[in-house]
Amino acid sequence: MGTKGKVISAFSLGGLNEIGKNMYVIEYGNDMIIIDCGNKFPDESLLGIDLIIPDFSYIIENKERVRALIVTHGHEDHIGGVPFVLKEVNVPVYATRFTMGLIELKLREHRFLRESERIEINSDSVVQIGDMNISFFKVNHSIPDCLGIVINTPDGTIVHTGDFKFDWTPVNNERPEIHKMADIGKNGVLLLLSESTNAERTGYTPSEQMVGRNLEQLFIRAKRKVIVSTFASNVSRIQQIVYAAEKTKRKLALLGRSMVNVVGVAMERGYLTIPKGMLIEARDVNHLPPERVTILCTGSQGETLAALSRLSTGNFRDVEILAEDTVIIAAGPIPGNERNVSHIVDNLYKLGAHVIYGSGSSSGIHVSGHGYQEDLRLMLTLMKPKYFIPIHGEYRMLHHHRMLAESVGVEKDNTFLLRNGDVLDIENTIARSTRTIQNGNTYVDGVDIGKMEFVLRDRKQISEEGMLIVIIPMNKQEEKLLSDPEFISRGFVDQNFSELRKEMKRIAMDTINELHEANRYSWNVMKKQIKKSIAQYIKEQTRKEPMIVPILVDI
Amino acid sequence: MGTKGKVISAFSLGGLNEIGKNMYVIEYGNDMIIIDCGNKFPDESLLGIDLIIPDFSYIIENKERVRALIVTHGHEDHIGGVPFVLKEVNVPVYATRFTMGLIELKLREHRFLRESERIEINSDSVVQIGDMNISFFKVNHSIPDCLGIVINTPDGTIVHTGDFKFDWTPVNNERPEIHKMADIGKNGVLLLLSESTNAERTGYTPSEQMVGRNLEQLFIRAKRKVIVSTFASNVSRIQQIVYAAEKTKRKLALLGRSMVNVVGVAMERGYLTIPKGMLIEARDVNHLPPERVTILCTGSQGETLAALSRLSTGNFRDVEILAEDTVIIAAGPIPGNERNVSHIVDNLYKLGAHVIYGSGSSSGIHVSGHGYQEDLRLMLTLMKPKYFIPIHGEYRMLHHHRMLAESVGVEKDNTFLLRNGDVLDIENTIARSTRTIQNGNTYVDGVDIGKMEFVLRDRKQISEEGMLIVIIPMNKQEEKLLSDPEFISRGFVDQNFSELRKEMKRIAMDTINELHEANRYSWNVMKKQIKKSIAQYIKEQTRKEPMIVPILVDI
Repeated sequence: MGTKGKVISAFSLGGLNEIGKNMYVIEYGNDMIIIDCGNKFPDESLLGIDLIIPDFSYIIENKERVRALIVTHGHEDHIGGVPFVLKEVNVPVYATRFTMGLIELKLREHRFLRESERIEINSDSVVQIGDMNISFFKVNHSIPDCLGIVINTPDGTIVHTGDFKFDWTPVNNERPEIHKMADIGKNGVLLLLSESTNAERTGYTPSEQMVGRNLEQLFIRAKRKVIVSTFASNVSRIQQIVYAAEKTKRKLALLGRSMVNVVGVAMERGYLTIPKGMLIEARDVNHLPPERVTILCTGSQGETLAALSRLSTGNFRDVEILAEDTVIIAAGPIPGNERNVSHIVDNLYKLGAHVIYGSGSSSGIHVSGHGYQEDLRLMLTLMKPKYFIPIHGEYRMLHHHRMLAESVGVEKDNTFLLRNGDVLDIENTIARSTRTIQNGNTYVDGVDIGKMEFVLRDRKQISEEGMLIVIIPMNKQEEKLLSDPEFISRGFVDQNFSELRKEMKRIAMDTINELHEANRYSWNVMKKQIKKSIAQYIKEQTRKEPMIVPILVDI
Repeated sequence: MGTKGKVISAFSLGGLNEIGKNMYVIEYGNDMIIIDCGNKFPDESLLGIDLIIPDFSYIIENKERVRALIVTHGHEDHIGGVPFVLKEVNVPVYATRFTMGLIELKLREHRFLRESERIEINSDSVVQIGDMNISFFKVNHSIPDCLGIVINTPDGTIVHTGDFKFDWTPVNNERPEIHKMADIGKNGVLLLLSESTNAERTGYTPSEQMVGRNLEQLFIRAKRKVIVSTFASNVSRIQQIVYAAEKTKRKLALLGRSMVNVVGVAMERGYLTIPKGMLIEARDVNHLPPERVTILCTGSQGETLAALSRLSTGNFRDVEILAEDTVIIAAGPIPGNERNVSHIVDNLYKLGAHVIYGSGSSSGIHVSGHGYQEDLRLMLTLMKPKYFIPIHGEYRMLHHHRMLAESVGVEKDNTFLLRNGDVLDIENTIARSTRTIQNGNTYVDGVDIGKMEFVLRDRKQISEEGMLIVIIPMNKQEEKLLSDPEFISRGFVDQNFSELRKEMKRIAMDTINELHEANRYSWNVMKKQIKKSIAQYIKEQTRKEPMIVPILVDI
């Protein structure tokens, strides 16, 4: 026990006060491990941004101390940032077989597969990193092969649950390793990090099997084609769709790139069994009687370019949805996507299809992969941690999770509601949170990666108010206007621009003359004044505040 | 019956396949009446647009035939377009006392109050317009003084339900006039237009009284300030908040312009009773013990500039939310607003407040004002119409409403699922829909009103990809470049612009030279070519497609 007495530090670079871009870091003495590195999808306010990933500054600055990236499971919000972080800090990646398959898809896209070091693990693996002895336990979620992580140090044990629910009857028979969890708790947990997504929902999450029973009934009743849309990574649900197709003697076509890719990984690695001859190509759908066809497609979140959306508007080559077809949206809309999904449902009804949709388990065709309050209480009870950090959730979820912890005996002051970057330091079993490291959102916009503050500010202004370009051709040396100012607008007003133009020309020339007379003929002053006087006029006339860009062209 | 044999026509200029901008038209022979004229709020894709109103082209073209605008109730989606349509076609407006109060607020804002002709009616009024004998019946909704409309013509009776639910125990004791409705149905209804908002939900809508009981409990338990946010127009709910405040000896402060305005109209016209001395100013809140204070505020939909949002971030002058205060969001989020509301809940928890929120009647603090399936079936059963147009809803709602009609005996082929502008003509009791009149969205953007196609297209491109201005100073006559091309970008890339600039300059000059050598020195060709070659380069380098605006400055 010569190393006893080192500091344990835990913090997040993403995942606190947000859903998405999960990235947690555990430091023990001089060794640092990263748990997960996800992305997040931008909301509409982040105009044009493709992806959000964590700010890696701290990781880059402490490069030489980072020993490993351990990934709990293969969802985008846990692996979407992996290629980006590895390009900065190329440490070994530890993940289970299925998770690794999805990570490899990503690394291949980024042309970083060969440079990366990948170590496949399973729930019985043990990994030694410095003085950290790391082991794992199986948890259920909505994707195969999920892990919780146990980090044993001479100064105490840290547990990270990953995303989980307790499903006693999982479709793939991979039950949660509750005996292991009980042992971990019995041996003492110094610090627990547990996910909070469904901390607002009472009760237990229903078993995935419920969905299977309902799907089967829908398949039996369907008189023509059955189209099912779900998350490509929900392999258990896809397995149940395969069972229902088998039962009703239907072939199966896969639509959508991620569906084809992920099903490919799942079959190849033994996580999904599809009977021989069941899979057909999309172009063969029309050669079969409709009652012999199942279509499994992406787009359950209403994504405009995904298969379901294109099917709903008749824009998918080879496959058409026709009257009396059955469409099942076997996924709940992620908050923010409700309207897009509804819009697709409208279009499907217009095609005459039967549509089965609806959020929550009441629809019978979707259950959550995240534990409800009783699942969370069970985990807290099993682990009985001294200290607790609720992770993976917006503030209200973390808040509710804290109350759940209190209700099962975690001392109130021992739960830490942290923000991204807030560090919890534990020294001699005393925990304190007094420091914060650099953190934030990094935006990916095409090949551009960064903070994008000015770019986004400009986009926002132009997107709401439009833009007005003022061109002033001058001879700088002679301080002479060479011809009349010109005005070009984009996204500004629909009508009456010629009226405005006439007056703006007058205002611009007056401004120039006034400055000239006052001997204030500097370019910067002139730009500023023209901008100001035109902005004022425009606002009075149109109530708009377009971005005004005065351009002095020097000849 | 000399006029017998005229055609009845019914159509919508807004409200079908959408929630919002309700506007229905009934024509009988040469006479036309408009029912409601609402607005709709733009979603995020309509960059910068303030409001959406119906396209009035048909109304304007048929100006001389329009006899009246009858308004069923005072919600924005039924009155928000009134000032705009009256400015085009200044017909008399018929509405109940409370509805008229809200319309007058709007007309005053638009400085059109004095020009307008307003006729107050109640549910016992009878209005004769040409051969149309128009009467009314009371319905319940989430605002006082709502009407259904009965239009008797020699060729049959048309009924428009307005927005409704059946509440047998309404807070204001204004019960639905079910006996009248029964009589109307008994006398025969040729055509029913009934609202479809909640046609997807099973059962009956709960009574508004349920909310009152739960509010009272929350007020009793609250140890410090109680802040309640709800729709300003939900006067019954506000009345129940007043009762709860009275019971717990609290004063009441109103925050938010629309809350002050609407409560003002409601009190002044006798729809809301607030005990003398209960109302206080916001600035007096801090002079009272917190357990003696209720705050009633706007912003239950998460609107960024409304009172609740500002309170949640500590940006409201005079009033602060502190630890142990109770905040009740007594409204369900309208689809699309979920994320904004959640964000406010997060901030309220951060302040240490108790927050009661949640959509649906399960939260106990909100019930819908729109009838669920059994309410809709009851209305259909009472009216037993020959023909039926489900109105006021997105396609899936209209679709479900059609199935409900079928389930209570309306013949399947007699239900018409129309789009805005589709006309249903009934001649000699035979209904057909074979023609469509002009319809669509008109956007209000500052003082600009129109279709805004180009403006919106430009805003969208710039908002996602940014803009690149290329300035080419030339002497047009001499076909001579006067100085190097210049590049100005906004909202485009965050970094490395100097690199790009150098190469773009080369590309632009090469393009000009090539064209010059090829004797293709026209301005349009040049603009097009420069745009094309630079766009291609930019896309390769950045994967972005900014709007490129080449400007040839002629000296």
